[in-house]
Amino acid sequence: MNNPRWILRRRPVGAVASDDLALVDAPTPAPGEGEFLARTLYLSLDPAQRIAMGDRAQYAAPVQIGEVMRGMTLGVVEASNHPGFVPGDLVRGAGGWQAFWIGRDGHKVARDGLPLTAHLGVLGPTGASAYFGLLDVGRPKAGETVVVSAAAGAVGSIAGQIAKLSGCRVVGIAGSDEKRRYATEDLGFDACVSHRVGALAAALRDACPDGVDVAFENVGGAVLDAVLECINLRARVVLCGLIATYNAEGLAPGPYNFASVLMRRARVQGFIIGDYQARMDEFTRRMTRWLMDGRIRYDDHVVPGLENAREALGLLFSGGNRGKLMVEVSRLA
Amino acid sequence: MNNPRWILRRRPVGAVASDDLALVDAPTPAPGEGEFLARTLYLSLDPAQRIAMGDRAQYAAPVQIGEVMRGMTLGVVEASNHPGFVPGDLVRGAGGWQAFWIGRDGHKVARDGLPLTAHLGVLGPTGASAYFGLLDVGRPKAGETVVVSAAAGAVGSIAGQIAKLSGCRVVGIAGSDEKRRYATEDLGFDACVSHRVGALAAALRDACPDGVDVAFENVGGAVLDAVLECINLRARVVLCGLIATYNAEGLAPGPYNFASVLMRRARVQGFIIGDYQARMDEFTRRMTRWLMDGRIRYDDHVVPGLENAREALGLLFSGGNRGKLMVEVSRLA
Repeated sequence: MNNPRWILRRRPVGAVASDDLALVDAPTPAPGEGEFLARTLYLSLDPAQRIAMGDRAQYAAPVQIGEVMRGMTLGVVEASNHPGFVPGDLVRGAGGWQAFWIGRDGHKVARDGLPLTAHLGVLGPTGASAYFGLLDVGRPKAGETVVVSAAAGAVGSIAGQIAKLSGCRVVGIAGSDEKRRYATEDLGFDACVSHRVGALAAALRDACPDGVDVAFENVGGAVLDAVLECINLRARVVLCGLIATYNAEGLAPGPYNFASVLMRRARVQGFIIGDYQARMDEFTRRMTRWLMDGRIRYDDHVVPGLENAREALGLLFSGGNRGKLMVEVSRLA
Repeated sequence: MNNPRWILRRRPVGAVASDDLALVDAPTPAPGEGEFLARTLYLSLDPAQRIAMGDRAQYAAPVQIGEVMRGMTLGVVEASNHPGFVPGDLVRGAGGWQAFWIGRDGHKVARDGLPLTAHLGVLGPTGASAYFGLLDVGRPKAGETVVVSAAAGAVGSIAGQIAKLSGCRVVGIAGSDEKRRYATEDLGFDACVSHRVGALAAALRDACPDGVDVAFENVGGAVLDAVLECINLRARVVLCGLIATYNAEGLAPGPYNFASVLMRRARVQGFIIGDYQARMDEFTRRMTRWLMDGRIRYDDHVVPGLENAREALGLLFSGGNRGKLMVEVSRLA
């Protein structure tokens, strides 16, 4: 194969099925003027990729049938007609689900001794979503209680730790005992409750004796409903994702406890990391420092082989990953 | 009767039934130290009163069985042991559904030549909800499009006019043709669409060619869903009320288009007028000026007789009122 790539064959109905995407070959492209050719090292797998397979414009226009699947990648420049890149440079960009990509722009990644994967996950859009979502949208104050759903996920695990650094009590929501232990023992969350118990709201109330001031929401559905039952006056609900609904056909009902937003005078606010482009340097500087100082921990869940990308995406929906899910497409050396 | 009053006999199931409230008599009370006795002139009827009849704490603790129904009133002081009030003073306070009430605090109302009813409606918590909800929570900018549901209602009619004064395009949502004409011809809304048509979202889109930047929401349910279908990036949804759900038994589903809040990076925020106590002087000053200058119009829907209060409350839920609904309990002179 020259440039293996995954294309969208048809729009999934519910969970992504094996025939919805196809792995095909293509010639390795050559960079034109102002472009570089990058070889993909790692491909990021994100819940929003499921949205992009649908037929409605949401964050962005859907991927068209026959097009390469969209995705963030970390690559190494192999050839360049771009003034900002030379062969050997590391670059993060929207390379898609393929082995090589042509870029006109991208974020040049420093060789700073941190693992390469960190630059796609905790130092990439994932970590930045946690950082800006929590601090800029959620605005937690020291002493407040912050609840984070999908607590062992790529974004939630970082958001919760930043909330701890902000002086908050942090309570996670996660599925398995192993993830809950990870959140409390490895990441330093004060508590982590299971969304698999029947009475999530009661468990949350026990874990949040002073109520919930900030909710960092990645899930939606029944999880968000339980959170809305526990929010305090003037709570902030940071909508980062609603993965519980991404596989739904048609429109899922909104939170049954929606009236809580009115009664508790809460603020529910969506955000997307692309809106924070102008502040990425601030984020990179602070997060790099936290990582170097050992104040933020992260996990990368790396699946080897581009051919496994489609199946690996399902882990996000089954709760099968811990930390940042990505595919290793090729090795640097 | 000495002091006729409505007490809560049992909690309504669905719409308020005739046996849920009872009109009883009581002795006329005498003011103690630091108190005044007021005779009720007008009783405000508000959707939140239905909430107070339920068994869950929402805005405030529920009214207890056997207690006088809660409500804002405008009265005249008849006797006073309160240093701030003398007989003949006009006072706005939480007098409840009764002919006389004992107050320890209240807002002294100026005799400024405006109709008495204005001081309970457009200059009272109703007008203040429109003012602070729109300006402080919604933050409309000149040139933006503002959608107001229950456009001919007490709050919506004022919110829409303040949005016009702010330089916005204003589109109302109302039920009847008469209300829609009222909004456009009398209040100056740019358009007003009917929520009784099947395709409200399509009608809204037609009326809002540039999308919706601020939604002032009084209704919820299908109306809010249509609004969420039309919101722009970074829209603000001001949650003032959700009257569509107040008669519901159990929890109603939240908006089916809830994911729009995430995808469009919108802000949904609840508020309650009680939180703006410290800024009521600012509001009173500005609204009085607008009224004197003829820049804000308002309607009062006055039902005569305290004995008709229970039945009149139903008008809020059937869409039977235009402007501020209140009961005339007695005459000033």
